[in-house]
Amino acid sequence: LTTGLYLGRFQPVHKGHLLSIKNILGEVDDLIIVVGSALKSFSLENPFTAGERIEMLRRALAEEDIPMSKVLVLAVPDTLPPNYHGIYVSQVETYCPRFHLVYTRNPLVRTLFEQEGYEVRQHREFERNKYWGTTIRDGMLQGGGWQGRVPQSVVDYIKEIGGVERIRQLAGSDTPEE
Amino acid sequence: LTTGLYLGRFQPVHKGHLLSIKNILGEVDDLIIVVGSALKSFSLENPFTAGERIEMLRRALAEEDIPMSKVLVLAVPDTLPPNYHGIYVSQVETYCPRFHLVYTRNPLVRTLFEQEGYEVRQHREFERNKYWGTTIRDGMLQGGGWQGRVPQSVVDYIKEIGGVERIRQLAGSDTPEE
Amino acid sequence: LTTGLYLGRFQPVHKGHLLSIKNILGEVDDLIIVVGSALKSFSLENPFTAGERIEMLRRALAEEDIPMSKVLVLAVPDTLPPNYHGIYVSQVETYCPRFHLVYTRNPLVRTLFEQEGYEVRQHREFERNKYWGTTIRDGMLQGGGWQGRVPQSVVDYIKEIGGVERIRQLAGSDTPEE
Amino acid sequence: LTTGLYLGRFQPVHKGHLLSIKNILGEVDDLIIVVGSALKSFSLENPFTAGERIEMLRRALAEEDIPMSKVLVLAVPDTLPPNYHGIYVSQVETYCPRFHLVYTRNPLVRTLFEQEGYEVRQHREFERNKYWGTTIRDGMLQGGGWQGRVPQSVVDYIKEIGGVERIRQLAGSDTPEE
Amino acid sequence: LTTGLYLGRFQPVHKGHLLSIKNILGEVDDLIIVVGSALKSFSLENPFTAGERIEMLRRALAEEDIPMSKVLVLAVPDTLPPNYHGIYVSQVETYCPRFHLVYTRNPLVRTLFEQEGYEVRQHREFERNKYWGTTIRDGMLQGGGWQGRVPQSVVDYIKEIGGVERIRQLAGSDTPEE
Amino acid sequence: LTTGLYLGRFQPVHKGHLLSIKNILGEVDDLIIVVGSALKSFSLENPFTAGERIEMLRRALAEEDIPMSKVLVLAVPDTLPPNYHGIYVSQVETYCPRFHLVYTRNPLVRTLFEQEGYEVRQHREFERNKYWGTTIRDGMLQGGGWQGRVPQSVVDYIKEIGGVERIRQLAGSDTPEE
Repeated sequence: LTTGLYLGRFQPVHKGHLLSIKNILGEVDDLIIVVGSALKSFSLENPFTAGERIEMLRRALAEEDIPMSKVLVLAVPDTLPPNYHGIYVSQVETYCPRFHLVYTRNPLVRTLFEQEGYEVRQHREFERNKYWGTTIRDGMLQGGGWQGRVPQSVVDYIKEIGGVERIRQLAGSDTPEE
Repeated sequence: LTTGLYLGRFQPVHKGHLLSIKNILGEVDDLIIVVGSALKSFSLENPFTAGERIEMLRRALAEEDIPMSKVLVLAVPDTLPPNYHGIYVSQVETYCPRFHLVYTRNPLVRTLFEQEGYEVRQHREFERNKYWGTTIRDGMLQGGGWQGRVPQSVVDYIKEIGGVERIRQLAGSDTPEE
Repeated sequence: LTTGLYLGRFQPVHKGHLLSIKNILGEVDDLIIVVGSALKSFSLENPFTAGERIEMLRRALAEEDIPMSKVLVLAVPDTLPPNYHGIYVSQVETYCPRFHLVYTRNPLVRTLFEQEGYEVRQHREFERNKYWGTTIRDGMLQGGGWQGRVPQSVVDYIKEIGGVERIRQLAGSDTPEE
Repeated sequence: LTTGLYLGRFQPVHKGHLLSIKNILGEVDDLIIVVGSALKSFSLENPFTAGERIEMLRRALAEEDIPMSKVLVLAVPDTLPPNYHGIYVSQVETYCPRFHLVYTRNPLVRTLFEQEGYEVRQHREFERNKYWGTTIRDGMLQGGGWQGRVPQSVVDYIKEIGGVERIRQLAGSDTPEE
Repeated sequence: LTTGLYLGRFQPVHKGHLLSIKNILGEVDDLIIVVGSALKSFSLENPFTAGERIEMLRRALAEEDIPMSKVLVLAVPDTLPPNYHGIYVSQVETYCPRFHLVYTRNPLVRTLFEQEGYEVRQHREFERNKYWGTTIRDGMLQGGGWQGRVPQSVVDYIKEIGGVERIRQLAGSDTPEE
Repeated sequence: LTTGLYLGRFQPVHKGHLLSIKNILGEVDDLIIVVGSALKSFSLENPFTAGERIEMLRRALAEEDIPMSKVLVLAVPDTLPPNYHGIYVSQVETYCPRFHLVYTRNPLVRTLFEQEGYEVRQHREFERNKYWGTTIRDGMLQGGGWQGRVPQSVVDYIKEIGGVERIRQLAGSDTPEE
């Protein structure tokens, strides 16, 4: 049995993530999806909490009929102190059941896992310009059409938690410091 | 829809936990199971990592045919600095999707969640003397009959990861300090 | 009795802060002044320690005859890990006596306290271009006329602790890294 | 001008503390009262948050007509990691305005400040058996007569925040671990 | 070339350590001596700072004519949060040049390094009752004959830094809490 | 006896460092070389771990016949939280044996040590444009002639650990975030 590990920040979950997950599920028996930078939230780059991102994944996986018995969604914080990269793989290992293959397109994460002897694969990327977190968050802020890029259940959830208003309020940074 | 939150250390998962989970599932629509003290491992009181305890829960829930669509298993570390109890509820909230009811028998955890306005219920406890982590870990160390108190899938998993040997090696504390 | 909470970094305390404090004291019975980012110091953006900023506030409040019985000056660090915004309100609550109203013009702080159900007010801002920390610190560095923007007692205190020399020495960054 | 520093945990503030403070105020011009172990709360040994202990001091000082212009009440956390004693004095120095004399009866604190060259004085202790935090907390738990040992304003405040109930609930530790 | 790693707390360095080091140097080409629990100091169990323990090792190695070209003395803190054992080996690896063999008699350290695939050897222990940190620190406290168990250069150094007085002052714990 | 302290990041060790070290050794009896930012690694600005940088120093000092009996190489992490500059000197003091003179060209480090009463000297800098970490790391990335600026033993060591490949892999940042 081969267990894969797929790392992302999921700010927010979008259709590109789901396409990747389906693809990876064709290559492994079991998949651990790690919500990285778990403690970051309430900023323009990381608006949602780990709990919210986990809920997005849960709803999106259900929407796509991906069985929860084959995937495990977990949250893993960044290291403390920040950027203590040398222990990151070890930290992920304490948070997760054993895994054999790592899926990432991030050069740092790839380097770190390869350094520890893991096989790292670059999952296929689907329409990068369209399914890209930065663009989607920007659409939420500017009012552009981000909804088509995000699963409907996630669009609904973001509405439920006032996600768009949160991002716009956080961006109201025309005020000088105190 | 009511989401419950059930906190435990699960060192290791035992049959008492599963009886409680089934009971709680009769009262809520959805259940978040929090593996607490996530970063503690490799000690006599906390032998297993968060990842290992999550895997135990996953296998035990499958063994009992509890659908993973109704439960969400998450790991939450203790606060940093240790015992910074005043922020613990807030920390749990960032790690988990929204929840409405808290199940715990721990007086500190109960106090903290009630202080923040949550309804806290004491789940029924099944044969406390039998299904008690301390007793079970002691059985693993001494060679006593712990296996009957733990789901078969968990017994198998502990064997797979060398859990009993780990505990015995950790206990070999006849050596003075350096 | 209504207790207000006013958050700032006070790097350094200036006349705009005092105008705001007087204004807020017209709306509340009691005011907690929080010196935020308490552990940051000895940088161009945060030159002064929490202790030094508390002393500035104490002297400036005395100079303006604001009674210390109506205000409480406290220091609160940023969260650890940095930017763990989801627990910030909870952290402030552990450091401070109970408060009912929050005064801030910072969008992040406003978002966080509103999320937790607090009423947040934007205190009036007095001559923003003049009373702005960045401009004042720049004046200290460049030798411009910052003294008129800062209460006399704070000017004297900064002289006493060699604050201007500190900022200029920190800025001597023409040296390459080792 | 001589500024003294008086360190305590104030769990809770009692009459012995006030006798000491009055005594010390006879020897110094200004007094910084440090609420130590600021982040510890919601345990039997440290039931109250820093904010609550600061509020107790404020009310007790007012009850005794000690002018807030002569005392400054601040909260200082323990070091991180715990017991990193070698940096403790330096940490206190960043949190507090400059001070010249240290008052403590704790051997560790005394050693640390003397090591850094401070003069450390043992403040007089008043009826130690009576005015002792452990005894008072025990009285709160058991229902014994602790009220006479604590200033009336603090008795009232503890009632206001449900302090006695909190301690008793925390003590309900007849429940085995999960 | 084989590099060994020898872990200890060295509170203080004693003759048993030096006998072990000489022994180990017969089995490896190069030896890294790790001063563990580097941030702990100023307590009865850990009286000396990392810097002081490093200096003790340096002087003792010189006294014994052990060439510094064959040994490397480094300090490594405990993990943060405390007891996050799962990342300890990874942390040691970031602090040290590559090593191949680990020498320890501590069951936890042994378990952790074996878990990561290292060969762990129990170095021979010399007259355990005599050369044991606890006994030696107790001797320093009580005035017993610890000097014969510690290299002369270390005895001198402890005198130089007032180590015995420090331990006795720290032990003056007849004073109740504040 | 005068002990000097020389702080650097040594990412990587280059010939300029060795020229400085030789120069400083003409002014002091003993030299502590501190590998700063010890926990930073696997980034373009800080590619090497503390252990690797210590090994580079060891080999380079041997290549130059600088006796290890006169120098002590130690690693010191940045403060936690990051930029808690007010405790940095105190932290360095706990990691190092006593020192009397500090060598640095960094304005922040100079300010911090002078604030604590240390004499700080700016060591002579040799051909700054040539012997500068940023330029050398850039050469490793771009394939330029960095080898002539680094001691031969360090060139060999970087090859041994795949340092150039590491930097190039880390730089492969053409991939958008997940």
